[in-house]
Amino acid sequence: MLRNFAKAPKPEKQEIKRRMNAEQAKLAANQMRIKDAKVPVMVIFEGWGAAGKGTVLAKVIKDLDPRFFSVATLDEKPTKEERRRPFLWRYMVEIPEEGQFKFFDTCWLEEVVGCAFRNELNDREYDSRIDSINTIERQLVDNGYLVMKFFFHISKEEQRKRLDALSANPNTSWRVKKDDREQNEHYERYLDLYGRYLRDTNRSSAPWYIIDSQDRGWATLQVLEFLNTGIDIAIRNRGFSSHLMQNVFPLAQVPDLADIPLDKKLEPEEYKAELKRLRLKLRMLHNEIYHWKIPVICAFEGWDAAGKGGAIKRIAASLDPRGYHVYPIASPEPHEKARHYLWRFWNRLPKTGHVAIFDRTWYGRVMVERLEGFCSENDWMRAYNEINEFEHELVEPGAVVLKYWVQIDKDTQLARFTDRQNTPEKQWKITEEDWRNREKWDLYEAAINEMIHKTSTTFAPWHILESNDKYYARIKAMRIMVEALDKACEPYR
Amino acid sequence: MLRNFAKAPKPEKQEIKRRMNAEQAKLAANQMRIKDAKVPVMVIFEGWGAAGKGTVLAKVIKDLDPRFFSVATLDEKPTKEERRRPFLWRYMVEIPEEGQFKFFDTCWLEEVVGCAFRNELNDREYDSRIDSINTIERQLVDNGYLVMKFFFHISKEEQRKRLDALSANPNTSWRVKKDDREQNEHYERYLDLYGRYLRDTNRSSAPWYIIDSQDRGWATLQVLEFLNTGIDIAIRNRGFSSHLMQNVFPLAQVPDLADIPLDKKLEPEEYKAELKRLRLKLRMLHNEIYHWKIPVICAFEGWDAAGKGGAIKRIAASLDPRGYHVYPIASPEPHEKARHYLWRFWNRLPKTGHVAIFDRTWYGRVMVERLEGFCSENDWMRAYNEINEFEHELVEPGAVVLKYWVQIDKDTQLARFTDRQNTPEKQWKITEEDWRNREKWDLYEAAINEMIHKTSTTFAPWHILESNDKYYARIKAMRIMVEALDKACEPYR
Repeated sequence: MLRNFAKAPKPEKQEIKRRMNAEQAKLAANQMRIKDAKVPVMVIFEGWGAAGKGTVLAKVIKDLDPRFFSVATLDEKPTKEERRRPFLWRYMVEIPEEGQFKFFDTCWLEEVVGCAFRNELNDREYDSRIDSINTIERQLVDNGYLVMKFFFHISKEEQRKRLDALSANPNTSWRVKKDDREQNEHYERYLDLYGRYLRDTNRSSAPWYIIDSQDRGWATLQVLEFLNTGIDIAIRNRGFSSHLMQNVFPLAQVPDLADIPLDKKLEPEEYKAELKRLRLKLRMLHNEIYHWKIPVICAFEGWDAAGKGGAIKRIAASLDPRGYHVYPIASPEPHEKARHYLWRFWNRLPKTGHVAIFDRTWYGRVMVERLEGFCSENDWMRAYNEINEFEHELVEPGAVVLKYWVQIDKDTQLARFTDRQNTPEKQWKITEEDWRNREKWDLYEAAINEMIHKTSTTFAPWHILESNDKYYARIKAMRIMVEALDKACEPYR
Repeated sequence: MLRNFAKAPKPEKQEIKRRMNAEQAKLAANQMRIKDAKVPVMVIFEGWGAAGKGTVLAKVIKDLDPRFFSVATLDEKPTKEERRRPFLWRYMVEIPEEGQFKFFDTCWLEEVVGCAFRNELNDREYDSRIDSINTIERQLVDNGYLVMKFFFHISKEEQRKRLDALSANPNTSWRVKKDDREQNEHYERYLDLYGRYLRDTNRSSAPWYIIDSQDRGWATLQVLEFLNTGIDIAIRNRGFSSHLMQNVFPLAQVPDLADIPLDKKLEPEEYKAELKRLRLKLRMLHNEIYHWKIPVICAFEGWDAAGKGGAIKRIAASLDPRGYHVYPIASPEPHEKARHYLWRFWNRLPKTGHVAIFDRTWYGRVMVERLEGFCSENDWMRAYNEINEFEHELVEPGAVVLKYWVQIDKDTQLARFTDRQNTPEKQWKITEEDWRNREKWDLYEAAINEMIHKTSTTFAPWHILESNDKYYARIKAMRIMVEALDKACEPYR
């Protein structure tokens, strides 16, 4: 794609200036249209070292209102701290909220091409990163994002000239890094790698625009024109529904909720003995996963008053408090609602060796958001696959994902609700909303069945906790966790 | 994608029947919605031999109005005659018109997977076919088509059982072909090849749906449900604009029309001598391209009264009448307008060894259709790249594409118009429309400059014929053709 790049004829200097002024004004107007239409815009700048990305960026934002755009300058290589999370994490936490521009002065390209150049990725790893990038770009677009990708292209000679000029000037010589020189020396090899990457990630939902960057004014004009066209199209396409992608991940067999016997029980003594035993085991395993740098995600979902809190408490009490975090998930905050619905979970991912426990999760999308109409039908139907993809991004680099569904029957819920209402110190736990949700039990049950069938991937299956007897449920939760952590540590021992 | 395929749980027989009836009725209603919304629907059935594609198809169309759907049953392997045109040709001529369903009982998959199985494609050829397929599917979707792709999946054991049952019955044994048995024997290898193909062509604009086909009723229900969902989404998305893909092909440098000197001339004697010489040359080369099986496409565009007809006449007169066809291109007929705008040109492609001469061409999209508002801005802006892709599909398998722009100045046009008006036998050549178009000269000139800059690919550049002097233009046209055909024959000699 890059080797054959067809430069458009460069206009005269005067014309560039005239058109650039017009496009800058148009972009300022488009900034307000974007704001009104609530479209989040992600602008990605990639390209050769010294191709002029920074200079162009300064001109592109010239007339923009600084309250509604920002620039993410990510280092090409992740820090030690960033490496402790999935490869896309440090980018995902930076995605813009609706109505805002975010400029990425370099994004995830370098973590594919740079690594490929240094032979740090084998073919399978290369393909896996390309898949991750295509997946996340598709998800962003499907969820209303405009993703505009620019590649700043200059020739080998031009790059060398610019690096020499920068080096010669004592005020700028610090900007020329060893990597830049290396890139220029191996220009041909980089040309192939960049070309391959552009081809592999050039999708009609988020196409690449190659910018002829020999002249900075001309480069700026090209970026502005593509940006304004892209925004026009995105605004015109508001409310567009995406096709549903079929799940591509292996699924485990799971029973319908109605077919789960709920008569399982544990006697108090048995409970106490098991609790003690499992607590010890968990504490040891927590040390071990910290040592082996394995991140762990526990996701709890279940009926109101099913006993999620109690189970979480018993697990948390077994862990070293420096190494876990419990996230109670309520309705999203405004700044969370303004982004991709999985953003607030990307934002809470544990680093390696740590445990994140979610009390309610991203599955809200296909339960409460579905049933209360907080998202469109297309949104929640698409979400099963998006969630499987999200969990795959976690498991792929080595995380353990444990998903618990805490199950009770309708009578048990009624008894617990009544108990909560009649016990002063438990009254805070019961609200009008709980009673309203209870009325929709059947609708919820159908949605939950669909959810556990469609998202029980073999790498992150649902575990059912039969919780009419809370003792039984808590012990089962801990036992599953012990087994999973033990298995995850196995290969390292 | 296929190896990990996650079967959805199969409902009870009674429920399948109930849901199937509902979906069949819904599809019948959707057929009318599709008709009203003028969406063309292309349904592609692919999958294992004996997977039940035919049976399912019969049930899917059960309640449909036969006036508004049809079935294309293409042989898995192209005939000798079909091989004489680009690989996608035999499919493209079959695409549905707007408001109609077309079912492809197998489409282009087999020409990739089957060929790969028989080691008839090297890696480069495999990639090139995948690119062609992704490109054409994207073009169809961008131009308003709904493309629904189903892969019918059965296990090795099930396939063998079905083939055995078919063989055992004398009424059906003829249906089991050698290829089916071979596929079953090499099931694992096919599984990999199919899986790779599905992954390579699984795009959000036209995703794959894998159909668990162990049970025919269940398979039918899955197809119906996906189809109805897909149609809902397509109708909701009517009027959606696509992002512009940047040209990926190498471009040649071409001058602006204003910079072309038009004072070139030929004296009558020189003209006659050259005409005679070039005629002979062309006749010989026409024989040769027939012998070497090279298809040739000549495309003429130019101002009204520029002399296209005269140049075409001189070329045609040099060719063997059995081996060429001249296509005068006017406004599209209703059945042409109802399809992808390039369809009527796909439909007129020459077979190998033949010459097709187009008097006006597919470039109408970015000239008259653009300026008269016959298509949307997004449509004509997208068309430059679509046209480059189209011509690449012709050149890639070996065709010669010659594009002529016949250039005159405004005064010369006026003189010729006046002459036509004043000469009784030429009056049919001049209409009110010609005068109206002349008034838009400047708008046309800007559009033409953009067109020749954006579509002068190195493999199919524009040739400018300076035609203030018609002798000069005709001779230049023939000389360019002689040179191009000579060069194309060179490697075979």
